[in-house]
Amino acid sequence: MQDWIDDLRAILGDRLSLSSSDRDQHGRDPGHPDGAAPDAVAYPLTTGDVAAIAKCCSAHCKAMIPYGVGSSLESQVSAPHGGLCIDLGRMTRIVAVNAADMDVRVEAGVTREQLNTELRDTGLFFPIDPGADASLGGMAATRASGTNAVRYGTMRPNVMGLTVVTPSGEVIRTGSRARKSSAGYDLTALYVGSEGTIGIITEVLLRLHPIPERIAAAVVPFPALGPAVDCVIQILQLAVPMARMELLDEVQMRAINAYSHSDHAETPTLFLEFHGGPASVDEQIETAKMAVEQNGGGPFTWADRTEDRKRLWKARHDAYWAAMALRPGARMITTDVCVPISRLTELIVQTRADFDERGLTAPILGHVGDGNFHAFILFDPEDVAETAAAHAANNALLERALDMGGTSTGEHGIGIGKRTHLLSEHGDAVELMRALKNSLDPLKIMNPGKIFLEE
Amino acid sequence: MQDWIDDLRAILGDRLSLSSSDRDQHGRDPGHPDGAAPDAVAYPLTTGDVAAIAKCCSAHCKAMIPYGVGSSLESQVSAPHGGLCIDLGRMTRIVAVNAADMDVRVEAGVTREQLNTELRDTGLFFPIDPGADASLGGMAATRASGTNAVRYGTMRPNVMGLTVVTPSGEVIRTGSRARKSSAGYDLTALYVGSEGTIGIITEVLLRLHPIPERIAAAVVPFPALGPAVDCVIQILQLAVPMARMELLDEVQMRAINAYSHSDHAETPTLFLEFHGGPASVDEQIETAKMAVEQNGGGPFTWADRTEDRKRLWKARHDAYWAAMALRPGARMITTDVCVPISRLTELIVQTRADFDERGLTAPILGHVGDGNFHAFILFDPEDVAETAAAHAANNALLERALDMGGTSTGEHGIGIGKRTHLLSEHGDAVELMRALKNSLDPLKIMNPGKIFLEE
Repeated sequence: MQDWIDDLRAILGDRLSLSSSDRDQHGRDPGHPDGAAPDAVAYPLTTGDVAAIAKCCSAHCKAMIPYGVGSSLESQVSAPHGGLCIDLGRMTRIVAVNAADMDVRVEAGVTREQLNTELRDTGLFFPIDPGADASLGGMAATRASGTNAVRYGTMRPNVMGLTVVTPSGEVIRTGSRARKSSAGYDLTALYVGSEGTIGIITEVLLRLHPIPERIAAAVVPFPALGPAVDCVIQILQLAVPMARMELLDEVQMRAINAYSHSDHAETPTLFLEFHGGPASVDEQIETAKMAVEQNGGGPFTWADRTEDRKRLWKARHDAYWAAMALRPGARMITTDVCVPISRLTELIVQTRADFDERGLTAPILGHVGDGNFHAFILFDPEDVAETAAAHAANNALLERALDMGGTSTGEHGIGIGKRTHLLSEHGDAVELMRALKNSLDPLKIMNPGKIFLEE
Repeated sequence: MQDWIDDLRAILGDRLSLSSSDRDQHGRDPGHPDGAAPDAVAYPLTTGDVAAIAKCCSAHCKAMIPYGVGSSLESQVSAPHGGLCIDLGRMTRIVAVNAADMDVRVEAGVTREQLNTELRDTGLFFPIDPGADASLGGMAATRASGTNAVRYGTMRPNVMGLTVVTPSGEVIRTGSRARKSSAGYDLTALYVGSEGTIGIITEVLLRLHPIPERIAAAVVPFPALGPAVDCVIQILQLAVPMARMELLDEVQMRAINAYSHSDHAETPTLFLEFHGGPASVDEQIETAKMAVEQNGGGPFTWADRTEDRKRLWKARHDAYWAAMALRPGARMITTDVCVPISRLTELIVQTRADFDERGLTAPILGHVGDGNFHAFILFDPEDVAETAAAHAANNALLERALDMGGTSTGEHGIGIGKRTHLLSEHGDAVELMRALKNSLDPLKIMNPGKIFLEE
């Protein structure tokens, strides 16, 4: 142990921290205050630093846990085997903006808000928006998405390439600046969503999008959950290229009004955003209005000015904190299922009823345009019965989603919490994933204990 | 050898062919009439058949070469180590159309035209269009794309899941019917583009798209190559969601007029297609017209009726045969580079000049909206000097594309022909790809000799 720390010190100097507050903070995520602390925290400045760190940890056979801003939700940053947390938060350089090609290369620690601020004069933006101001390396590692994915896709199609440090300290570059390629295996896609278990992402090459000429956003209440979800499905089938299509149920709307001092109707509500040329946006709105009317929704409250739109989406993004504020001191399970859209109404309505029957406070909200939704299941960790009810409700939801041909995680990943659900979902394919992991990380030092149950 | 054939015969009966015409035909692709024949050809009817075949070939340590319709262009179906060609052409069942969810599961031998015919009453279509009426399994295996990729993406984002038979005969299912997932490694993306080197794709789960309310297509000539490509770049930067944006140079237009008895202007020409609601399409056309005018192009020849549009795209798709007809009996190198769009004008203009200087007949055409283009470099294989000039011109083009941050193959894949270019393009990452290959195919029996140079 001391030899390993001495060797790391030689590489990092005072950018290696052994302080207990640093270590504790780096093992936790917002949903898991009891995450395990690493033995030390490294703050590399370059890909070269990371490569040297990996060589050192490899030589000492010590675990490495990559860390962005710590906003993941399935204990991805916890260190159950100790080892070194590699905090990429000081690697915040925008390496190259290629406005003409609509791409950008950034270091892994750049956050999405930092990137969009730097892009402000280019007419371009990076749309993926998981709510938190996450690091782009972390977003790539967990295959994040969020409110804009219905139009712009998840991190999967928006990451064009990566710089990755392998567990043994080799530096590889995947992908290219070409918009498409058939040159060999799609290593970029293999690392996107690998949750730090096969290498450390140090740079990300991202696809950018032109800021639309017109943006219009609105909030639309519905009398009940069913018609709100049906309306979403209808809009999709009418081929309206929606930019955002978010559902918040009545519990979540109540939480938001209380938290943001707003006065939205406290019924199931859609938050919509339209992007395009002026005529296209008018046409999209016309079609959406028809679908809303047919499903008994309305009226639309429009946010036309930029600041009104920002306020609208801030309320949506504050959903997590608003839910927390419903019961201060409570813990929360953040679910994350995604199902074929034809099953969405049934699943959401069932889930609302199930939570209510179990007496749980659990707002539902989600990226319904993708068939993806979350519930914030609140429970008092001191209350054994309520804790059990919360976990049982979550498991029942996951099983229903898998029965419907869906997935146990639309965007939060497996981490520690969903390893058994991964087996239910993918069966024998998990052994194949493990074979890949073992071939790329034979010492089993990359974020051990994540994605796969221990052997 | 005889034991192996006997064991295969027990599985397949008369669906195992040893005839030399069958074997010869299955080792060739359109560009490589000298491809190596396999020892035998199997015609499985089910995934179970394929699994039994794989177990048998594994036990006898014999090579397996998956085969769709044989329209690949980089010798992917050649059998340099002999072994068994697995022709999936009899697996043509549409397993499940889910119109509400806009997805479909098909067996690997279904072709894209068969699929779109079966979908005709659903209001949905599968857009990926590589020209040939390829099998969907083959399109997944080579990460195909084509004229629509600028709007709808390549096979990569449009394959939601796969059924794969591993080299040892296990059956795994990747992905799910959910629109997105963060559940473990993206195995779907790993198999898409793997060219049969790690498993045999037997079923493909595809994303469908609503047929747009309005479709408009046009042909627009330009005075020179440079302005035509500049116009494409400008249209992209104006965020026009083009459905198709194809460039054909003056040599290709001459070939098409001769082949299709048409009377297009014989100058560099764009083939454009617009998809959307009526107002959106009008708006797109307005913007595109402005860009065309600014670059000295025009006039537009519109194909408004479905049959006119079909004729227009048939002419585009016949480009390959039209080029062949320029010099009957000649051989052809089909190039396939893709570069960042800002370098496209420079590369195409340079390439045209280089071909002309070398005295080569070589029409240029491509999916310029993606930065991807092809040249059909014709040569007489009996003429040593011309053969050398054709290969030198192709290599020079590939090197220029890589120098510009591009890729050596936008959509045709590596096969046998581009294995050294893969090394130039991806360096150390190729060793990592090989490690993955070896972990999934330890006996090295899956399509050996493809993607990787022999060890």
